[in-house]
Amino acid sequence: MKLLDCTLRDGGYYTNWDFDPDLVQNYFESFNKLPIEYLEIGYRSNPMNSYLGEYFYCPPHVLEKCKESSNKKLVIILNEKDVRAEHVPQLLTPCKGYIDMVRIAIDPKNFKRALLLAEAVKKEGFQVGFNVMYMSNWADEKEFLAQIKNVDGIADYFYMVDSFGGVYPEDVRNTFNIVRDQTDVEIGFHGHNNLQMALINTLTAIECGVSIVDATVTGMGRGAGNLSTELLLTTLNSKGLIKDLDFNALSKVVDPFSEMQAEYGWGTNLPYMVSGAHSLPQKQVMEWVTKRYYSLNSIIRALSNQSRGIKDNKELKALDFNEVEKYPEAILIGGGPNAVVHAKGIKEFLLKNPNMVIIHASSKNARSYENLPNEQYFCLVGNEGHRLEQVFNYNKKINGKCILPPYPRKMGTYIPSALTDCAYELKNVDFTDKFEDSHTAIALQTAFELGVETIYFTGYDGYEGDAIDKKEQELFLENEYLFKNFKVKKPVSLVSITSSLYEGLEEDSVYSKIERK
Amino acid sequence: MKLLDCTLRDGGYYTNWDFDPDLVQNYFESFNKLPIEYLEIGYRSNPMNSYLGEYFYCPPHVLEKCKESSNKKLVIILNEKDVRAEHVPQLLTPCKGYIDMVRIAIDPKNFKRALLLAEAVKKEGFQVGFNVMYMSNWADEKEFLAQIKNVDGIADYFYMVDSFGGVYPEDVRNTFNIVRDQTDVEIGFHGHNNLQMALINTLTAIECGVSIVDATVTGMGRGAGNLSTELLLTTLNSKGLIKDLDFNALSKVVDPFSEMQAEYGWGTNLPYMVSGAHSLPQKQVMEWVTKRYYSLNSIIRALSNQSRGIKDNKELKALDFNEVEKYPEAILIGGGPNAVVHAKGIKEFLLKNPNMVIIHASSKNARSYENLPNEQYFCLVGNEGHRLEQVFNYNKKINGKCILPPYPRKMGTYIPSALTDCAYELKNVDFTDKFEDSHTAIALQTAFELGVETIYFTGYDGYEGDAIDKKEQELFLENEYLFKNFKVKKPVSLVSITSSLYEGLEEDSVYSKIERK
Repeated sequence: MKLLDCTLRDGGYYTNWDFDPDLVQNYFESFNKLPIEYLEIGYRSNPMNSYLGEYFYCPPHVLEKCKESSNKKLVIILNEKDVRAEHVPQLLTPCKGYIDMVRIAIDPKNFKRALLLAEAVKKEGFQVGFNVMYMSNWADEKEFLAQIKNVDGIADYFYMVDSFGGVYPEDVRNTFNIVRDQTDVEIGFHGHNNLQMALINTLTAIECGVSIVDATVTGMGRGAGNLSTELLLTTLNSKGLIKDLDFNALSKVVDPFSEMQAEYGWGTNLPYMVSGAHSLPQKQVMEWVTKRYYSLNSIIRALSNQSRGIKDNKELKALDFNEVEKYPEAILIGGGPNAVVHAKGIKEFLLKNPNMVIIHASSKNARSYENLPNEQYFCLVGNEGHRLEQVFNYNKKINGKCILPPYPRKMGTYIPSALTDCAYELKNVDFTDKFEDSHTAIALQTAFELGVETIYFTGYDGYEGDAIDKKEQELFLENEYLFKNFKVKKPVSLVSITSSLYEGLEEDSVYSKIERK
Repeated sequence: MKLLDCTLRDGGYYTNWDFDPDLVQNYFESFNKLPIEYLEIGYRSNPMNSYLGEYFYCPPHVLEKCKESSNKKLVIILNEKDVRAEHVPQLLTPCKGYIDMVRIAIDPKNFKRALLLAEAVKKEGFQVGFNVMYMSNWADEKEFLAQIKNVDGIADYFYMVDSFGGVYPEDVRNTFNIVRDQTDVEIGFHGHNNLQMALINTLTAIECGVSIVDATVTGMGRGAGNLSTELLLTTLNSKGLIKDLDFNALSKVVDPFSEMQAEYGWGTNLPYMVSGAHSLPQKQVMEWVTKRYYSLNSIIRALSNQSRGIKDNKELKALDFNEVEKYPEAILIGGGPNAVVHAKGIKEFLLKNPNMVIIHASSKNARSYENLPNEQYFCLVGNEGHRLEQVFNYNKKINGKCILPPYPRKMGTYIPSALTDCAYELKNVDFTDKFEDSHTAIALQTAFELGVETIYFTGYDGYEGDAIDKKEQELFLENEYLFKNFKVKKPVSLVSITSSLYEGLEEDSVYSKIERK
């Protein structure tokens, strides 16, 4: 039974496949003392459209450096969906002499095509691993199941990959038997840890007779992550299946990855558990978790709806904008500090202009705008309903209307019970093809529907200062995209009246306007 | 099958049983919406010698508040080792009307005595839970096994507790059968997560037919922690064993505990894995992990020695201090910044006094004291050997001697290979009954053995500034304790020549001394 560590390959999902050279050196030196057969160092890939780091392409200097540092068999993996047999010479010729095995990540739906790729790889003289994904769905993939036997003579290992992290030991046993009935090829197992089942599933696979299993240091890997190498080694050692485990070397490689884990936060959590338990793609979960404006709550509700095959908790009445009052001007309030810092001036401005409508893109700053004569709209995306409750004590009636994204809402629906009478959904968002369910999109569409010709902004500060994190950066780019598209499609001026870094907004000062109107 | 959440009780190991009132309120409100039968809120206890918080004693106002906030059955636990039958009226009368079940944490060695306590509890009208610990060792506890049947008529639940977090599903099955053969009482299972086996073990216990299982939110609990409530509920829900799980409520209780987890860091890691795999007490591991001067490396080495029943890697030759040069004065260098900040002045001082011996309690600042004529001693406790290597590039010879704690060293022995010829151990540390293996103790003993009459200190700064953490505080108190004891037992002056907050050290300035000698 052989072990494969794929920390650099699977961990790259968190670091965009760039790793500190000292970390990598320590990784190889430590593993030189550990009872692991293979190290998978990354992908080989055709050029992609976005920046992806060193270990996504593994260019020759990387291959050479890894080989020089390691006494293990080295492995790279190909993404079947992006690689065809004709790319093989270009991608794999530089690997010769450095790489022992080439694995192929395969969606069972493309299994037939994958066989052609695998044959081409085999011809180049590499060991070939089939990493077939989504094992929890294989029972429904009759066409794939019927083709498994065609791996004979091509595959050195045929992996069952628990992509969703949702299988249990009995599933491992059943799937193992299904594969074993079809072929005598050596079988492997790659587990994910959404339900903390990676170890027991792997031990079960070993009991069944697999020839190879995967793990990563600290479980580093997409979403909830993998079986952790240190747990696997410690357990196999205590069971007597591995003798003489060098805990110093193990600890030395674990330490720096543990530090990174504290920063990046891989490992399971409630949304990953739900996605695992219901075989939902954790890529989507991961995207949602890293978006700061969706709370765990919203994500779980969305996932839980998805898993139960229901589109949403309920369809609301759409607001008929022909029936409501129109406004020539609106003030759109975001979640940035300027909406609080300048609240006094903005309230003066609003008092002077009582037929200006207030639209809260976020409820965060709503408390600063109580007791005004102006009508107020609250955009409730995802978790904003909970936030609104907190802002206005508990379930107090608000003076205004709540607007939700169009049905079906992928982030679910939560409306404080006191507000159900004044909650409506939009019929559609018609000025953008992306981010239709963002706070800003809902707020802009609402302003447009209300007949607004000029939208003033506050609280769209755009993250001044040195410490802008990745989520903030993404939200910033999202908003810029929405402003740009809105201006192209709608004859509406967008003017920030507190300072803002958004290029899509003109700038003016609230203090110059108070006395002018 | 019933579920019990014991987050406040088991989580108290991290917070010393104090919890923020809002956190507790949110905990009870959220659980009111979740399918859990029992909430264990804490201990009832006789007065102990150190400060322990609200939920360790659960005084009447706490019982009342919990009862008022919760629609669940409430539970408290007694530590059998500290409570006798005669304490029962005092401890449990205030619980009447608030508490439904009293559990008793029992070492199987004290099982007979525990039966008397349990009878007294039962008489007061409470449900009684036997939480019998160390299930991985039960096979050796013949006397205990023979007595299990005596719980009939007393126990409402008889728990198998996987104290070390080291059992596997087959062990759960075997132990369940052993207990079932003895008694018809309802059986429970309380799992720990050192090997990430808590869920599968709990699911296995449920399959075997246990009537109740425990979990805590985010797995909060001593050391590696418990099965997490959210994982248990999500899994049972996806398996159809729990219908209508309110993910909002679940998420609402998980969020604040997740934030605390980021701060306190419960969950498994390599040393907890090793302790689980080898049934070693994680209390000791936890103490070592939180001491900052033992690296994971040292701890694992110590644990791994302990698990293999070996006292140490090797016994070194003890240094015969009759054979080495004596010195009237020493400078003892700690790890604090002052040893670097003032290195230039201190080196001047040393150059003027070449027969002053240098003793490095920590190797951290050793690079600042290279190329001096003075003899140098390096104290190698735990991981210091690795640090010394790093400080002096790789395995370079040092000019001096290495001194290790007396044999056997509970933190193991690591000596850089280039230094084995100049590494010695102390025969004993004779001036203290505590912390004999600390850096400072070894350094002080070494100075004494070298005949030193005045020890100058630098790098014993004592953590100036606001941000002193718990580990630093502990180390500070440890050193003060050692200085105090050393001065009582040995006729040696202790003088810090850079600024220091230690009361056990007199203060002087290195700059006043350079020209005086």
